[in-house]
Amino acid sequence: MTDSARKNKCRIAVDAMGGDYAPESIIAGSLQALEENRDIELLLVGREEEIKTYYPGGKERCKIIPAAEVIGMNESPAQAIKQKKDSSLVVGAKLVRQGDADSFISAGNTGAMLAASTLLTGRIRGVGRPTIGAPMPTMSGGVCFLFDVGASVDCKPQHLLEYALMSSIFAEEIYGLKNPSVGILNVGEEEKKGNELSQAAYKLLSEANINFAGNVEGGDILKGKVDIVICDGFIGNIILKFAESVLGLIKSKFKRAAEESFVNKLKIGAARGVMKSAFSDMDYQNQGGVPLLGIKGINIVGHGSSSPLAIKNMIFRAEEMFRKDLLNKFEKVLEDNMGVNKV
Amino acid sequence: MTDSARKNKCRIAVDAMGGDYAPESIIAGSLQALEENRDIELLLVGREEEIKTYYPGGKERCKIIPAAEVIGMNESPAQAIKQKKDSSLVVGAKLVRQGDADSFISAGNTGAMLAASTLLTGRIRGVGRPTIGAPMPTMSGGVCFLFDVGASVDCKPQHLLEYALMSSIFAEEIYGLKNPSVGILNVGEEEKKGNELSQAAYKLLSEANINFAGNVEGGDILKGKVDIVICDGFIGNIILKFAESVLGLIKSKFKRAAEESFVNKLKIGAARGVMKSAFSDMDYQNQGGVPLLGIKGINIVGHGSSSPLAIKNMIFRAEEMFRKDLLNKFEKVLEDNMGVNKV
Repeated sequence: MTDSARKNKCRIAVDAMGGDYAPESIIAGSLQALEENRDIELLLVGREEEIKTYYPGGKERCKIIPAAEVIGMNESPAQAIKQKKDSSLVVGAKLVRQGDADSFISAGNTGAMLAASTLLTGRIRGVGRPTIGAPMPTMSGGVCFLFDVGASVDCKPQHLLEYALMSSIFAEEIYGLKNPSVGILNVGEEEKKGNELSQAAYKLLSEANINFAGNVEGGDILKGKVDIVICDGFIGNIILKFAESVLGLIKSKFKRAAEESFVNKLKIGAARGVMKSAFSDMDYQNQGGVPLLGIKGINIVGHGSSSPLAIKNMIFRAEEMFRKDLLNKFEKVLEDNMGVNKV
Repeated sequence: MTDSARKNKCRIAVDAMGGDYAPESIIAGSLQALEENRDIELLLVGREEEIKTYYPGGKERCKIIPAAEVIGMNESPAQAIKQKKDSSLVVGAKLVRQGDADSFISAGNTGAMLAASTLLTGRIRGVGRPTIGAPMPTMSGGVCFLFDVGASVDCKPQHLLEYALMSSIFAEEIYGLKNPSVGILNVGEEEKKGNELSQAAYKLLSEANINFAGNVEGGDILKGKVDIVICDGFIGNIILKFAESVLGLIKSKFKRAAEESFVNKLKIGAARGVMKSAFSDMDYQNQGGVPLLGIKGINIVGHGSSSPLAIKNMIFRAEEMFRKDLLNKFEKVLEDNMGVNKV
């Protein structure tokens, strides 16, 4: 991307059919974003008739791109991408590849979005595996990023290095964390701890141009011991889903305590509002989407139950990543630290 | 063990020097157990002079076994076991091997306890890897066991099968869960999901004589979707430590909310007692120790900060496992399901 391009409008393709409340929620969020931000152009991808129920068309910065098929939330990603060539996910991912959009966002099937982005939009030069990260709340009130949370279940050490390099730039540029510290998720702090993957990754990360803090343990994520925790997507996905379920456990515990006695019920009732706000950042729905780092486009995937607000935030996030030229920065850091040929 | 042996007193060796509050807490808990249960004999292992400060000796069912050295909480397990041959951990583990004790409990260095148990007490016939499990609270108010939580960081599918067989018996006999359901921790429910280990383990577990429920996800542990979740010790340890840190996050969130306004402070103060009791089962200290399954002895390891109550509970747990003849039941199920020669 050239400097002049950065001054242009950011063209964002939106999967109008993806998510539990599509297309209504998706279009509502898109139109809000369009109103609040004059530097974006939107391409609503999906079934024309359904989209027109909520957006009849006519706005200069918001076009409809027809796509007749929809990939369901539970369809097998690789197969769906192959078979449904006229789905909103496939068409959207291709818009970025063809240079007709700078970014593609979807609240649909995460696996299919990942597959479409990897196979159709394509990877940045030097990236073996794209990665999805998630911000976790910390005890000090900040966030700790977990990369990868499910893009790749069988990682090589080289892939963990890619995650560390790209997530460091992402955390600094988008979350304002200066020179973010990076740890490898492990069962102990010593260099020789852990399984084969973590030991080999330790060596690679300690030689890379990042703020490497060594190994961290499972308890260090919420403690916020480092800004970024690197792990393979198998364990990252399991931790992410475990963390999401904690809120359910907390609710069930308060519910049971309230049922035990009327006094308990009054006490818990008094604190309910405070509790709700305290735990709001543990609710995935408030996060508004996570980017797929390593893709040759600003592709962001959101939670299936994304609200219009979440969609709007995803669009704004995409524009910010575009303005900050993250893709070129990723490519450069990968080249500097690994040499593209090595990958 | 013969039927007549089961009618004898259960002889439990206690690591008097292990844990943050040793020997005082350990001995206090031991003496309480001795008083409440007439079917046990205790062997307090450690520095004689220090033990005598809290227990001068003289009780018929409580002997002191001298051991001059102590393995610290942060010492390298394998090395410590090798070098400190007169440590309480080494001496205690050997007492079981020699047939002088039926059980050994310690609140000391978990890794060293595991190493001493595996190398000195020895494994049950048919066990490739011993395993440590942990009970997690569920939304329905029950528990879900996680095996393994750190005994082995590089597992083979066969090891996961051993964990599933032994933990099924443990959960049924000790926790009263009839025909407990067993799931493999994975990133999705389908058989073909996950990494190489989980896919191979799926096949083995589906052919074993257990109540196999297929794959479960990270969010299913606290939901209590199954009674037992099987995983390798690398991920199990990370999840256990993550789960332990959740309580810290909850506390920090309430603290911050209370600091925000005086009204919040009053509201949270009102609910504090209820919250504390609701989350008491998420506090490792209340669990009282976890057994090492697969060892040729009832060896149990407790949290470093074990209170006298936790120690007493560990001793009672050991006696229960002894009376229920778990070691022979483990050996039999391993033989029936795998054939010892295959291991």
